[in-house]
Formats: sequence, C-alpha cells, structure tokens
Amino acid sequence: MKVELVAVGDELLIGDVVNTNATRLGRLLTDAGMRVTGISTVGDGLDELVDVLRIAVGRADAVLITGGLGPTSDDRTREAVARVAGVALRRDPEVEQWLRDRYKDTGRTLTALGLQQADVPEGGRMLPNGRGSAPGLAVDVRGSVVYATPGVPHEMAAMVAEQVLPDMLRRAGSPAPRAQRVLRTVGVGEGIIAAYLEPLEKELAQAGAVEVAYLAEPGETRVKLTSAGPGGGAAVDAAALRAYELLGDCVYAEGTEQLAAVVARLLAERGATLAAAESLTGGQLAATLVGVPGVSAVFRGSVTAYATDVKQSVLGVDAALLAAEGAVHPGVAREMAAGVRSLLSGTYGVATTGVAGPDPQDGHPVGEVYIAVAGPDGDAVAALALPGDRDRIRTLAVVRSLELLRRTLLGLPQEHTREFTG
Amino acid sequence: MKVELVAVGDELLIGDVVNTNATRLGRLLTDAGMRVTGISTVGDGLDELVDVLRIAVGRADAVLITGGLGPTSDDRTREAVARVAGVALRRDPEVEQWLRDRYKDTGRTLTALGLQQADVPEGGRMLPNGRGSAPGLAVDVRGSVVYATPGVPHEMAAMVAEQVLPDMLRRAGSPAPRAQRVLRTVGVGEGIIAAYLEPLEKELAQAGAVEVAYLAEPGETRVKLTSAGPGGGAAVDAAALRAYELLGDCVYAEGTEQLAAVVARLLAERGATLAAAESLTGGQLAATLVGVPGVSAVFRGSVTAYATDVKQSVLGVDAALLAAEGAVHPGVAREMAAGVRSLLSGTYGVATTGVAGPDPQDGHPVGEVYIAVAGPDGDAVAALALPGDRDRIRTLAVVRSLELLRRTLLGLPQEHTREFTG
Repeated sequence: MKVELVAVGDELLIGDVVNTNATRLGRLLTDAGMRVTGISTVGDGLDELVDVLRIAVGRADAVLITGGLGPTSDDRTREAVARVAGVALRRDPEVEQWLRDRYKDTGRTLTALGLQQADVPEGGRMLPNGRGSAPGLAVDVRGSVVYATPGVPHEMAAMVAEQVLPDMLRRAGSPAPRAQRVLRTVGVGEGIIAAYLEPLEKELAQAGAVEVAYLAEPGETRVKLTSAGPGGGAAVDAAALRAYELLGDCVYAEGTEQLAAVVARLLAERGATLAAAESLTGGQLAATLVGVPGVSAVFRGSVTAYATDVKQSVLGVDAALLAAEGAVHPGVAREMAAGVRSLLSGTYGVATTGVAGPDPQDGHPVGEVYIAVAGPDGDAVAALALPGDRDRIRTLAVVRSLELLRRTLLGLPQEHTREFTG
Repeated sequence: MKVELVAVGDELLIGDVVNTNATRLGRLLTDAGMRVTGISTVGDGLDELVDVLRIAVGRADAVLITGGLGPTSDDRTREAVARVAGVALRRDPEVEQWLRDRYKDTGRTLTALGLQQADVPEGGRMLPNGRGSAPGLAVDVRGSVVYATPGVPHEMAAMVAEQVLPDMLRRAGSPAPRAQRVLRTVGVGEGIIAAYLEPLEKELAQAGAVEVAYLAEPGETRVKLTSAGPGGGAAVDAAALRAYELLGDCVYAEGTEQLAAVVARLLAERGATLAAAESLTGGQLAATLVGVPGVSAVFRGSVTAYATDVKQSVLGVDAALLAAEGAVHPGVAREMAAGVRSLLSGTYGVATTGVAGPDPQDGHPVGEVYIAVAGPDGDAVAALALPGDRDRIRTLAVVRSLELLRRTLLGLPQEHTREFTG
C-alpha cells in the first residue's frame, strides 16, 4: 500500500516547528509494512492544500493529513478534503453534541468557528479524538482513502495507532512486514562502528539478503539490519549474531529500549537505588531518568547544584578543594557523587560537572566535563572533552553518565576496549 | 520570490531521519524575505524525483533540493535535474580535477560512481562545496531556478548561506521582508485566544493588510501578525496594539523570548534568586531554566525529591502531613517551595508535585498537579487538572510553574482574569 503524508501549517514552512509528525508516521507505517512514497508540507491556504491533496490522491492508495483541523479561521483541512472529494460539508449533529459536551467538560467556550469541527464531508466519517477536541476524518476519494488527523503530536499518534492504521491494514490485507533488528550502541563514533562492521557488510553485500543502515544520535549509533524482502528473519538473526561479535560491549540494548531504561532495569535487578548530583547538566540527567516508566522504584532523586556554594553546603564537597580548584575538577565530581549518594541514601550516586559554554570557565575550555559514579564497591571518574554547542554538550554528558553507570553495574571496564585494527 | 524545498532520501520517508534541513531553510529564507510555499520529501528513485521536481518548478520561482548528490548508486539528483531541464549531463573536467584532488587529500578512493559528482547539466553551473566532497548545482529551468545542495546539514547550510541565498537575493532584487510581530501567550487555550481576537480578525479581514496565525505549543499559544505584502510595519504595529488590549496579561513576551527567559530576566531585574523543588517534573523545570543563557546569576539550583521520604529528609516537608495526605497535596507543594527556598538560600522557591501517570497514585487521578511559589511576600499555590500523557503533563506543569512565578514577580493575580463573554 502506497501512502503519502501531507502536513498542513504555515509554521512548518517558515521553520517555526520541526515536522516530527512525519518522522514518527514514517517509522510507524514502514514498520507496519506500508510504503511511504512521499511527504508534502503545505501552508494554511485553502487552494494550495487542495492542489497538493489532488496530486497526492492521484499517486497513492492512502493520504494521511496532519494539521488544519482546529477551531480557528486558518484551519481549512475539512474544506479542502470535501473539495478534493467533490462533495459538500455537512454539519454532523452527533459530532456537534460530542463537541459541546467535550468543551463543557473542560470548561471552555465553543465558538462559532469551533463548531466547524463538526463538519464532515458527505460520505466520509468522523474519527473521534480521545485526547483533544478536534475530530479526525476518513473519506474515500476516487479509489484512494484520505485520512485527516490533528497536528498536535500526541493526539495524532493516538488517532493513527487506534483508528487509522487498523483501517489501513484492513484495506491492504495485512502485508507481511520485513524482518528487522536494531542494535543500539553507545560511546563509540558512527565511523568506528561502521569500520567494526566492514567484514559483515562485505559478507552481506554478496548474499544481498540483509541491508545495513547507521543512525547517529548524540553519543549513540543505532545499527539497523533489515531483510531485503518480506520475511527473512533467519538471515537478519545471523547478521545480528555476527554484529554482536564485531561490536562487543558497546551494544547496550536492542530495539527501542533506551539507555536510561537499561540503567533502571540493571538497578532494579540488583535491588539498588540511584541518586544524582548535577552541575552543568542542570536537571537533564534526572529528567532523562524520570522519563523511564516505573523508575520510581530505583530513583531516589537529585540535586542540581548550579551555584558553586551549593556543592559545598548541600552536597558536602570540600570547601578547600572548591577554593583551590573551582567546580570543574574530577575530585569535585567524585565528591558530588559520594555526597548525593549519602544525602539521598542511594546505593549509587552519579554526578556531572564541567563547562557547557558558550564561554570558558575559570580557565577550563568549553566541553571539559567530569562525570563520576560512587557505589558500594568504590567510585569511578571519567574526564571528557565533549564537542558541540551548549545543548549538545549537556546531552552528551547525560549519555556518558548513564553509560558509566551501565558499565559500573555490569562490572565492565570503564571504557569500551575493543581495539580497532582494521 | 516563491521558493519550494525538495528533500531527497529514503531515510526521510521511513522515519529514520528528521528533516531538520527543511526547518532550518524555512527560517533562513523567510527571514530573508522569501516565501516558502511548499516542502516535498521524496525517496531515492529517479522517476519519483523527476515528477516532484516538475511540479515544484511549475509552481515556484526557485526550487531548492537537499540530498542525493553523493557518490553512491542511489544518488540521482544530478540526473533528475538534467531530465527536468531537458538537457544532457556533461562531465566537467575542472570539477573532476577538483574531486580527484579532494579525495587524494583526504586519503579516500574515488570510484567510478564517485566521479558522477563531476557531472553538470548543460547550461548549469557547479556550486563548490567547502565542507564536503559533493558539489552543488544551479540550473535555470523554464523561468525558474533549481539549486541542488548536499543533504548533510552543515554542508547544506554553508552552501546555502554563501552561494544559494546571495544568488536568490540577486534574482529577487532584494525583496523587502514582510513586517511581522509575534505575541507569546501562556495559560489560556488556543481556542480562547482566537475568541479574544475575533474583533481584531474581523477588522483585519476588511482591511486585508495583516494576516493572523495561531501556533499552539503545550500550555502556550503564539499569535503571529504578518503584513500581507512587503513592508507594512505600521499596520502590523496597529494590529499588535489592538491584540494587547484584547489579550491582557496572558501575553508574556514578544518574538523569540521564552517564558523561562522572561522569568530569569524578572528575577535579575529584582536582584532576586530562585531555587526549585521538583517531584513529578523530575528535573525538567531545572533543565528548562538552565537552558536560558546567563541564568547562573539568578538560579541557585534544585532538588528532585522523587522518593516521598526525600521530601521530608531533605526539603523538611512535615512528616505528619505526608503520612496523612501523601505527596499529592497543595500543602506539600507549599512546604516543598518553602523548604528548597531555605535549603538553597533563594529569594524565591518554586515546587511541583502531582501525578504524571500512566497510573493514578494514592487515589489521585492522572493529571492532578499542585504547584507553589514561596517568596519574601508570602506564597501562592495552584491546583491544576492537566490533560495528556506523562510527557505532556510534565511539560505543562513546568510551563504553569514558570507562569505562576511570572505572575508572582509582576504582582499580577494568580490566574489570567479577562472574562470571555463573546
């Protein structure tokens, strides 16, 4: 089934908003065995949207629109779909009642413009919105089907998962998905990962049954092994086995499990808890951990000691050390980790300190970062020279702290040790 | 000048890569006075790319392609541009020599496929790539101009800034940018904001000189006022004045200033500092504040008291209150704010507690959240019922905490009070 995505909104054209909806949908639909053949982004103008929809309907079996369903005058998706289908819009009394109830429940006022959300193209049907107030649409248009979903990401995602995708699969007769495995690595650059896997890539190039793709994110590289056609699970499994041999202990998980979730799982398996002390990462390490469902069983809490004197008064870092060396020092990271472990009664403590930039600090260059882990069997400190801007340095410091925790919990050496001799 | 963007690559369609190039280009071109009228994403297939380019050339004055210029067999952008222009590809000896030198310098092998990077459509010209090895193209096609740039973001950005944009501006005769003002509001839904502005929208619809657009983000709505043509600053200023009258104190800033930056500025103006205590937001409030450049002058730090006993042992919340009411209670938020203010010696303390989900907690439903601010003139507590999933509830709790701080610092009533009677 060929699917085209159409994203609606001036904010996407002028670069105010990143089109993450398209990325999310691309992954979801591809994983379900669909073929996404094109993505179009168009502004709020009615005529432009109608043109783009006409072209998309002519090319694809299904067109999935995101955005333009809301209660304001620049929400024209309903009108555009009706025009492309060549039918009139009709106010649906049931949808109108649902809208009135929904607005009443949430204490909001339903305006005349808001009521247009109850308009459905003739012959189409409404897709209820369980997370927001703008209902979606499904309308058959000249042998294709057009779905319209809200632009708000979590509303869109729920509507697609619960209503659009099941309908697509019904129409497509449930195509067989291609086999795929994703190996997640941390702490080694994408170029080195690719060099490690050169022998595998050569073997695979001859057989032609499995494709390899690399996906770099800050501090991490995902290796994606996909069968060339439907099925092909055995060939992908064999390739994954070989990849594990070549990559060693920098693979921390498979599939969608994130590094913070691995750390939380390792802590839970050991009946251990964690406390965090943050300086340059400013709460981001804690927020990343708290993003893991069920983390409350293992995460005690954190202290962001942003002002230097707080490192002493709350975390108990030695005042003489701070006076002599400043806050950017391996000993400070070590004492922060030990201090927060004691303050919050955690089995382990983890800490970050360093220079996120934009300016050097006390003679230390931007990117000079120290991370530490304190635990029942002693502590570990790592000195890092991290590249990039303020945001990237913070994100990398969080990733490397989690990786130091993972290695400590697994009893691995502090750094990935596979020598590259290729 | 109407510009369409075309992004090339299977990885964009299957959701492996987010199309941040389009966002970056949208902002850059809009700021330079161009009108980005559409963005298309297409896979690596030649026929599909030719079709998309034909349509884009027919609609726009300039088409800017990103991707498909590299040295592998799935890089077909040169071929597609030549086909749309109706001309042959010719190997350019100078480009070939430049490529050979470039590969030699970096110790790589130039393959036969790699040499296709020296192919230029007849009548077109090569755009040198100062950051990588794939040269770009500029080709005139039936009254439009087609630019092809690499997909690698930093190579693309440099080529566009140094070569493409200057050429566009020359062709466009340096258009005057359209006047624009953006009013940022918080704490009131998009539908209500639109209803507040209905009188303005009616006045503007008659004059036709200023366009209004709404941009919703979690907890916030931006109102964008843009002149219909080049210039038009006076009309936009008059519309902004009227919008301020209609919206009242839910406007917290203009342009790109974020809510956390406004809070930091208000604190600095008062010579005051802030400390944060977080439960359900788990570090995200601190991380949001730390994202503001220069915040170290006003932000003392934070405690994430994720485990309930930490609220008592570190922040000094009354043990009897916690035992009787649990952690999800307005009194707990109030004592957390006062406790962290005292612990970290801040002028103000701010606190969050509540249920992020996915499951209810101690009989409290998902989304029940309490936020509090403690300061030299007393404290304020707000009870919130926040919608959405775990991530969204956290983000909304952060936004509403910052808004409660803003209102406290400005001496405004705790909630936006303009009654909607429309």
